[in-house]
Amino acid sequence: MDSEGFREAAISSIDEIISYFDNIGTRSVVSTVEPGYLRKLLPSTAPEEGEPWADIQRDMEAKILPGITHWQHPGFHAFFPCATSYPSILGELYSSALSGACFNWICSPAVTELETIVLDWLARMLNLPACYLSTGPTRGGGVIQGSASEAVVTAMVAARDKYVRETTPMDLSEDAHDDFIAHKRSRMVALATTMTHSSTKKAAIILGVRFQAIPVRAEDNYALTEPVLAAALADCRARGLEPFFLTATLGTTDTCAVDDFAGITAALEAHNAPDTPGEVWVHVDAAYAGAALVCPEVQTATHIARIARFHSFDMNMHKWLLTNFDASCLFVRDRNWFIQALSINQAIYATGSSASTASDGGLVTDYREWQIPLGRRFRSLKIWFVMRTYGVKGLQAYIRRTTKLGEDFAEWMRARNGLFEILTGPSFSLTVFRVKGQTEEESNARTKRLCEGVNASGKMWVSNTVLDGKFAIRMMTGVRATEKEHVEAAFKLLVDMAGEIVKS
Amino acid sequence: MDSEGFREAAISSIDEIISYFDNIGTRSVVSTVEPGYLRKLLPSTAPEEGEPWADIQRDMEAKILPGITHWQHPGFHAFFPCATSYPSILGELYSSALSGACFNWICSPAVTELETIVLDWLARMLNLPACYLSTGPTRGGGVIQGSASEAVVTAMVAARDKYVRETTPMDLSEDAHDDFIAHKRSRMVALATTMTHSSTKKAAIILGVRFQAIPVRAEDNYALTEPVLAAALADCRARGLEPFFLTATLGTTDTCAVDDFAGITAALEAHNAPDTPGEVWVHVDAAYAGAALVCPEVQTATHIARIARFHSFDMNMHKWLLTNFDASCLFVRDRNWFIQALSINQAIYATGSSASTASDGGLVTDYREWQIPLGRRFRSLKIWFVMRTYGVKGLQAYIRRTTKLGEDFAEWMRARNGLFEILTGPSFSLTVFRVKGQTEEESNARTKRLCEGVNASGKMWVSNTVLDGKFAIRMMTGVRATEKEHVEAAFKLLVDMAGEIVKS
Repeated sequence: MDSEGFREAAISSIDEIISYFDNIGTRSVVSTVEPGYLRKLLPSTAPEEGEPWADIQRDMEAKILPGITHWQHPGFHAFFPCATSYPSILGELYSSALSGACFNWICSPAVTELETIVLDWLARMLNLPACYLSTGPTRGGGVIQGSASEAVVTAMVAARDKYVRETTPMDLSEDAHDDFIAHKRSRMVALATTMTHSSTKKAAIILGVRFQAIPVRAEDNYALTEPVLAAALADCRARGLEPFFLTATLGTTDTCAVDDFAGITAALEAHNAPDTPGEVWVHVDAAYAGAALVCPEVQTATHIARIARFHSFDMNMHKWLLTNFDASCLFVRDRNWFIQALSINQAIYATGSSASTASDGGLVTDYREWQIPLGRRFRSLKIWFVMRTYGVKGLQAYIRRTTKLGEDFAEWMRARNGLFEILTGPSFSLTVFRVKGQTEEESNARTKRLCEGVNASGKMWVSNTVLDGKFAIRMMTGVRATEKEHVEAAFKLLVDMAGEIVKS
Repeated sequence: MDSEGFREAAISSIDEIISYFDNIGTRSVVSTVEPGYLRKLLPSTAPEEGEPWADIQRDMEAKILPGITHWQHPGFHAFFPCATSYPSILGELYSSALSGACFNWICSPAVTELETIVLDWLARMLNLPACYLSTGPTRGGGVIQGSASEAVVTAMVAARDKYVRETTPMDLSEDAHDDFIAHKRSRMVALATTMTHSSTKKAAIILGVRFQAIPVRAEDNYALTEPVLAAALADCRARGLEPFFLTATLGTTDTCAVDDFAGITAALEAHNAPDTPGEVWVHVDAAYAGAALVCPEVQTATHIARIARFHSFDMNMHKWLLTNFDASCLFVRDRNWFIQALSINQAIYATGSSASTASDGGLVTDYREWQIPLGRRFRSLKIWFVMRTYGVKGLQAYIRRTTKLGEDFAEWMRARNGLFEILTGPSFSLTVFRVKGQTEEESNARTKRLCEGVNASGKMWVSNTVLDGKFAIRMMTGVRATEKEHVEAAFKLLVDMAGEIVKS
């Protein structure tokens, strides 16, 4: 494919993408293909000879799009949004053209520096405490990771390293030191709640440390509170376990609950004071709801200033902030915690050029020491394009608009409280509800049928969860294309179908 | 930015990208900005109001491009290539438009299925043993990861899990079981060689297991051989350590050496036979050179059929196979090893729709259980576009052409053996050489000056390494834009500058 061929192919692709977005509402939200559909349509080996672009592009519409579930569809109310937007697409376009491994500063200074700058922009926009700024008092800063899962692994590795370093005596013989650490590691435990995203448990598996989920309660709205955490810490002590890590959540996966940051700090202070050796590292997972912090009213309501006592904070621009997957923004209060745990020096990555002296001398950031991989994509570009195109006000307007849609939906639900029961929310555009029944079993069965029914319609897609044995539907209204008319249509479908289910 | 604004912005971006590629040779390969250059050019906060695209695009050329090191430049001879190509860019374009988290099959069936299909295409193209096909006899298959580093973490987690499972007695009490495993984990060691990429050491750090680098020898061309591995295994046994993981490399980072697969199998058979409980997991890191397996002559020369006895294999399409970062293709012989180690079930990811039954019933692949993150991008699209646009023959021609450039370069070097000494290669387009001197110190000093000198020219960029105390330059000729004339110019610059250095 030469330049002229690319120009033609690219323009034609751009037109198809525009047409895709302009007409997305006419497609079934969720794909209706059968498992294995694509293998029947494609050959079993790559072609020997190259094929013309027209053939490939034809297959996009004919073979790929039927197998796509449309996360940008106005009727997509499942899980959380996985954003994209026109400026974000342009960012990926430039990034793929400027492809490089960019594992240190000299490998493309702009890749490192723009990342530091836009993450400072983001920290200020979300009003994170100053300790999370690259220019802050504690040498903190942000790094873009692929996903919130990678972010929690990174934070947990740093936390384990810090904890072991702080709690291991210096004066042991080598054998005694090895035994001490082996025993300690077998007693260390990462904590989360039963509502924390599974990525914390997975990180504990990857690290090979114990994991304990703290049960949270409906009466606390499924948030972690001081007495519950205090009890869990006491239980760990009684069993000889050493808690070293806690994930606190701003917007849990199932219900968008916000853990009580002040209560967490109080419970931890009683256990092992913050900023003393052996403190528990607190990682704030704000993967989805962190986006809403662009609005000052959310900064206040969630008490975001209190995370100054914590250690790391992560939010995904690629969920609710108009940037396409992947762009998980991880902030740490002290970059040395990452570097001490993850730094690897290999001769080949020190180059003979004078510019690399900057890298070696600590003048610039080597993000490879802030993450699992070595190489990195130019992901800050799309964030930069999105922030500049929308501006802070544009992003606030989008968050407020889609939050309001969730509030409208919940209000309509409440007006039909003979039929529906709201279990949690509206919280950050998410309402969790079920169909009422004479018994729990009947309610569960009806809600499950409703969930399957509306999803089979192709007009909307919701996900579900189970809260204290109650099968419930999660209705999320955060997708960019979703307007009031779409939420009204979804509500009407839910009412109609639930009515039929109750009748039958 | 509305559809019309996007169309205009995208076409203008496409034109800029074409112009970038058409004129890339006129830029300095490596960026010449000073650390901190970008902060001086950008505001410290995001704009309140959105800005027009024209302003953003102007900043791309004025502020970003000066800070780019051009990995697609014909004079880029450093590290390894980090590919891109027009069809790959189109793949990213569509992928960013179809953005979704795609953590299971129903979240977009095409994302899962195309990944399985193109990785089977790739396995066949590279002539990997049938056990690495999704349709093979051992239920193996491939998965696209972000980087070779993530791939080795994934493989090592699965290896640790498998080893502990196979070597822990079933009949222990809970306390005794905990103690047994804690002790075992403290004795388990991941092995690599001193030439293995640092990602294996980093993976061991992340997992919290011991790491041991086996020194390899110049007389073995820095490859791992049977006697060297046998000695390392014996040493581990003598120290009470339990080797559970070994990275074998096809194309080491420093010199592109290929470890002796037959020798590795022989040494391991004497230690603990393959396919018996407690066997050492062998992960093949072919991140760069694996691309060359598209050529049958390389399949033969590297004895790729022998990896049927190993456990996992990883190569990066994004290095030498015309696909932009990231696309690391990881193959495993038995998918259950991944799933048993990494599976997490959370209620929300089971959906109420009937299609998800396929996911739950094992009919389709849940790639989230084959990797660290939960969510995933549609990365198979760019691989599919690249394979179809170039065809197997086109990819072979590209690998052969750039390999030949390395051979030409080495031949010219050998003709100047009064001035230069080749330490290793040419191997997979890489030649490692130094400037001769009366003493080691003189040779090192001259080579270092030469490396700094040619890099400062802006016309080419090479990286360096140190082999047995010998400072050496790595000259790689794998970039798509690199033609014979560029290698000739680079060679002439090296000769001229080395001549001056020797004279002075």
